[in-house]
Amino acid sequence: MRYYTFLLGLFLAVGATNAQNTGEGVPASTNVSNAIYPRLLPDNRVVFQVNAPGADNVQVDLGKKYDLVKNEAGVWKVITDPQVPGFHYYSLIIDGVVVADPASESFYGMGRMASGIEIPEEGLDIYETKDVPHGDIRNRTYFSKTTGTWRRLNIYVPPGYDKSEKSRYPVLYIQHGGGEDERGWVVQGKTDIILDNLIAGGKAKPMLVVISNGNVSRQGMRAGGYNDETMAVFREELFDNIIPFIESNYRVKTGAANRAIAGLSMGGGQAFYTGLRNTGMFANVGVFSTGLFGGIARQPGTEFDPETVIPGILTNPESFNNKLKVFYISVGEQDPRIEPTRKLVQRFRDKGLNVEFASFPGGHEWQVWRKSLNDFAQKLFK
Amino acid sequence: MRYYTFLLGLFLAVGATNAQNTGEGVPASTNVSNAIYPRLLPDNRVVFQVNAPGADNVQVDLGKKYDLVKNEAGVWKVITDPQVPGFHYYSLIIDGVVVADPASESFYGMGRMASGIEIPEEGLDIYETKDVPHGDIRNRTYFSKTTGTWRRLNIYVPPGYDKSEKSRYPVLYIQHGGGEDERGWVVQGKTDIILDNLIAGGKAKPMLVVISNGNVSRQGMRAGGYNDETMAVFREELFDNIIPFIESNYRVKTGAANRAIAGLSMGGGQAFYTGLRNTGMFANVGVFSTGLFGGIARQPGTEFDPETVIPGILTNPESFNNKLKVFYISVGEQDPRIEPTRKLVQRFRDKGLNVEFASFPGGHEWQVWRKSLNDFAQKLFK
Repeated sequence: MRYYTFLLGLFLAVGATNAQNTGEGVPASTNVSNAIYPRLLPDNRVVFQVNAPGADNVQVDLGKKYDLVKNEAGVWKVITDPQVPGFHYYSLIIDGVVVADPASESFYGMGRMASGIEIPEEGLDIYETKDVPHGDIRNRTYFSKTTGTWRRLNIYVPPGYDKSEKSRYPVLYIQHGGGEDERGWVVQGKTDIILDNLIAGGKAKPMLVVISNGNVSRQGMRAGGYNDETMAVFREELFDNIIPFIESNYRVKTGAANRAIAGLSMGGGQAFYTGLRNTGMFANVGVFSTGLFGGIARQPGTEFDPETVIPGILTNPESFNNKLKVFYISVGEQDPRIEPTRKLVQRFRDKGLNVEFASFPGGHEWQVWRKSLNDFAQKLFK
Repeated sequence: MRYYTFLLGLFLAVGATNAQNTGEGVPASTNVSNAIYPRLLPDNRVVFQVNAPGADNVQVDLGKKYDLVKNEAGVWKVITDPQVPGFHYYSLIIDGVVVADPASESFYGMGRMASGIEIPEEGLDIYETKDVPHGDIRNRTYFSKTTGTWRRLNIYVPPGYDKSEKSRYPVLYIQHGGGEDERGWVVQGKTDIILDNLIAGGKAKPMLVVISNGNVSRQGMRAGGYNDETMAVFREELFDNIIPFIESNYRVKTGAANRAIAGLSMGGGQAFYTGLRNTGMFANVGVFSTGLFGGIARQPGTEFDPETVIPGILTNPESFNNKLKVFYISVGEQDPRIEPTRKLVQRFRDKGLNVEFASFPGGHEWQVWRKSLNDFAQKLFK
């Protein structure tokens, strides 16, 4: 009988929209179906409303927790502080149970399907779908000899690829953060829209972007995170499975100059390790918001020592300057990682290592990573 | 600081897996990360466990509702009845609030992101990823003149498409059900795996499958459902936007014989209306589990009259027999729609209309639709 529920769901949702013009702001673009809450106010405060007559306590966790207040009808409501523009993961907490909000789309982050809310950034159009040639995202199955399983990856293929049957393209391999997977750069990151816009504006070279799952582990091994074992298995997955698969199935250019590796947070650590340790494979490395530089990878509190991770990076910077066309580091200006990151960049520069540094408003969040991709992609393959 | 949460999440999840070998069954394939519950027992009962010390009442809704029981640690648990094999949407109900289970993947169904659980069907391998040539799923952006917005659709492209640069392929246009969208046939339906296996076995012709969003509405109009207005706007979206987009961007064969339209539930109604009213466009029509025949589209209780919906279908069946290469109707054997569907098929056959009918074990669920696609696709484009 679920079918009736389906249609009923649609009727109700839309009925509600038509009937109820609350006047307070507009539904978020991340709302499902025709859900009328959450709603965005002009000053970026968000109105959350949850129908929960049987609950004793309802909160919204947006990094900061907000208590909702119940009315006589059992409808709980809160208006948050103004939110920073961009994409935010959030959760509802119903009597202490942390769950996704049924009114919003869910996104794989925090190691589960978490709610997300998009706060528009005025004047920013880098991830706005425009009337330009569009590439596509291709979801592919490949077999990993490393994990012994079939895995999925996503590939951004630029506009014109199917029609220009002779041209070959450079490739950016990009990694998600901890608790995310190969969906992150597609759904939260909007990689295809960002690249479509850059390519249409002549700001980036047409390229493929390979978006794979960085949580790689052999049986019984912990996936993801920073240590030599996880980095070794990540490298093996990329070098022995993913790159050969891409280079045998797509019209791509080979050679280090035509390959870039980048990532955010945990993926930034993977890009740092794998890229800088293999400059013969990648001449372009982008490291976004990694916790690595704060020493998270090592015993808590110990100083991060790049030389032990990347032999020669401080003692022989010229060899890296000669091999790397782009070495790029970025971080959010409200991210606690900014201080250790600035310190490291300064230390690299003092030693004579060429490194580009950029910071963007925002914390440890997707808006910074979307802008980092938009910035980094413009420097590649020139 | 979310980053720490991310990694912590991974550590905990995996730590738990390693530490806790509960002995009761195995985690469902639909669990996220390394979540150890829900677990499947050998007889297809499911063990659900939720940590909710602050909740007064926790239920699981799998169509039938189950009350979880709380232990002294605040962990709630239940073992369900044996479940029918296949994919089931389900919800947690925390003190009356219906939410997705953070331990499972979420899927867009029921008009929101709902939990899903996969119960393996012994001996059934039609949607098992195998060592055969694999096609891919391409997510594309197109502009709809009908809705005045950019929309996304998914396209299954068969193996070899990129390498055989001269061949052209027939196309199946397939629709999801009410409360679902263009993700349904990709994620829940596993269209790409089913087609890969059929094509590898020589059981189906290589074809493209276009998986679009059937919730189409002009401003202020209700999306989806059955009535002449929604069917007209669905037809316009398909004929004026989607089909021209596909036929100008992919190497496909044109002409009715090379086009099929099918759908499930609400989408089955769309395929019935749009396919049978436009046999000059589609010579192949598949109708899976539609509620249409139960008269849902009309005033409740009134008998469904195919002749008023499809003029000539009963009075001039020969004209349909001449134009349709495949007219296929299927339904689940435990679906309440089976009786009205059987009746209508009999009525069609009594009038001399050629219609193929198939039923599969199961209710109004994806397992029936996966099998319907697997069956229908083998009849096409021969």
